[in-house]
Order: sequence, then C-alpha cells, then structure tokens
Amino acid sequence: MIILGVDPGLSTTGWGLIRAEGNRLSHIANGRITTDTAEPLARRLAYLDSVLAALIVDHAPDAAAVEEVFVNANPQSTLKLGQARGVALLAIARAGIEPGEYAARLVKKAVVGVGNAEKAQVHAMVARLLPGAKIAGPDAADALAVAITHAHHLASRRAGIV
Amino acid sequence: MIILGVDPGLSTTGWGLIRAEGNRLSHIANGRITTDTAEPLARRLAYLDSVLAALIVDHAPDAAAVEEVFVNANPQSTLKLGQARGVALLAIARAGIEPGEYAARLVKKAVVGVGNAEKAQVHAMVARLLPGAKIAGPDAADALAVAITHAHHLASRRAGIV
Repeated sequence: MIILGVDPGLSTTGWGLIRAEGNRLSHIANGRITTDTAEPLARRLAYLDSVLAALIVDHAPDAAAVEEVFVNANPQSTLKLGQARGVALLAIARAGIEPGEYAARLVKKAVVGVGNAEKAQVHAMVARLLPGAKIAGPDAADALAVAITHAHHLASRRAGIV
Repeated sequence: MIILGVDPGLSTTGWGLIRAEGNRLSHIANGRITTDTAEPLARRLAYLDSVLAALIVDHAPDAAAVEEVFVNANPQSTLKLGQARGVALLAIARAGIEPGEYAARLVKKAVVGVGNAEKAQVHAMVARLLPGAKIAGPDAADALAVAITHAHHLASRRAGIV
C-alpha cells in the first residue's frame, strides 16, 4: 500500500510517499513544492495543484492524508494556508482518494510520542522510521510524518482497534 | 465579453455571469452552489470544483473575479473560507483565466457607492443594474456584484484610467 502525506502551505508544501506492508514501512520519495511569491495567487495555487496531480499520477497512491493546518493568530496567514490546503485536498479527492486529516499535535504524538515535539525531533524520528530516506527539509519531514500517522491509523482500523 | 463573479464559501458559493458590451452590462445567469455539511471536507471541495468547472465550460467566460473573503475573527471559519476560495481560484486558473480579486468593501463601493452597504442594498442595486435578473439569494447577488466590479475595472483599464 502506497500512502501520500501532505503538509500544505502556500509558499512551501511538503510531500512524502511511503510504502506500508503490514506493519513495515519504507520510504519511496519526498520533496517540497515551492510557489513563486511574485506570481498571482491563482497561478501559485494552479502550480501547487499541477505538481500534486503529477505526483499522484506518477506514484498512484492507495491512500493519502493532509495535515490539519495550524490555525494562526494572523487571519491572513490562516487564509493563505486554507487556500493551499483546499487545493491539496481537492487534488487528492479528484484522484478518487478520501484523504485522512490529522492535526499537527496528533501527528507528533503518533511519530515522536509527544504532541508538542519540536520539528527537529519529528525529522529525526521520521529518518529513523524510514531508513535511507533523504529528507528534503522540515516540510517534507512533516509530510512523511503525516503519511506514517495515516499508515498507523489504517493499520489500527484494519485490526478493528479504531 | 462574458464575466464570471464568484463569492466563495464552503457551505454556499454564489456565482454570477454577466455580459459586458462597452459600458452596457446584462445578466446571463446566477446561482448558488451548496455543499452537504454531512460530507467529508475533500468531497465538498471536489463538488464545488466540479460545478464551477462545469459553469466555466458551459459559459466560456472571458474574465472572472473572486471576492476576497471576509477574514473572520474565528480562525476556523477563516480556514473554511480559505479552502473554498482556493478551490474557486484554482477552477478559474485551470481554465486559463487570471482571476481578479476584490475586497467586499471595494465591491460594495463599486456597486452601491458606499463600502459599508448592507446586503439588501447590494441586492437591490444589482437587480437595478441587471434588469430581468432573478437573483438566487444574497451570495448570488454578491457574486454578480463582483462580476460588475470586474467589468468596471476592465473598462477603466481599457480606457487607460487604472
């Protein structure tokens, strides 16, 4: 089973693909999609959409999950995040996949063990859980963590735990 | 020239299509897209996208504009609006149109003459500017007002005023 994780953002969206075979997880690929702040908003969203759509066509994930964005004190930041997140959810839904959604706290708890883990701890634990992965920065680490969280959730669901 | 206006929202998105010939405006169609609150978020966004994409294919607008959403004091509401707005901008960008973006205040000022106009005033003025239009509620009135604002802006730009 191939799982796509996405950590959405208007300037930078992290993505990560993992393979889950029973309880064994392995790394497939990860990266970051950056949009040009000099471009109009709609074009930035279209670029994000097209790269995500290409990733989905290339890797044909069976499942996908998107991090629930941090609702910022700054409404303009929240709005930007929301716009990118809407596009990420749509790209996945258009591929016929119902995305999981996980709050950042829950992802940290699932991967590191504590909900208030630092970015560096998430990165280190993702690198340990997915040996050989060369992780393209904190957003990609978060995206892989989201994919791992979704893998755990799907495994628990199959086992009848949740 | 056919202009599409959109007033985005996760639960209800208003849309309106007008024709601009020189300074003459006329109504083509308007309506509202409502998503089922019982459905998962991604499916609601996919539904919104598919209806907007169908409208764009059906009516082949030459230009389009999206209202800048009201940034709510409630961050969760802002996030929802942002997600719907991202999808609306994307649907337009995918059709090769660069959407205009207008703040609600500016739309009200352009259509009613004052930036703090009530919804009822916007509705009444849109009905006057577009005789014969049967307006499908406040969201559709706002969407038509956005289309009218964009028509004015494009006309001013052609005239070298802005």
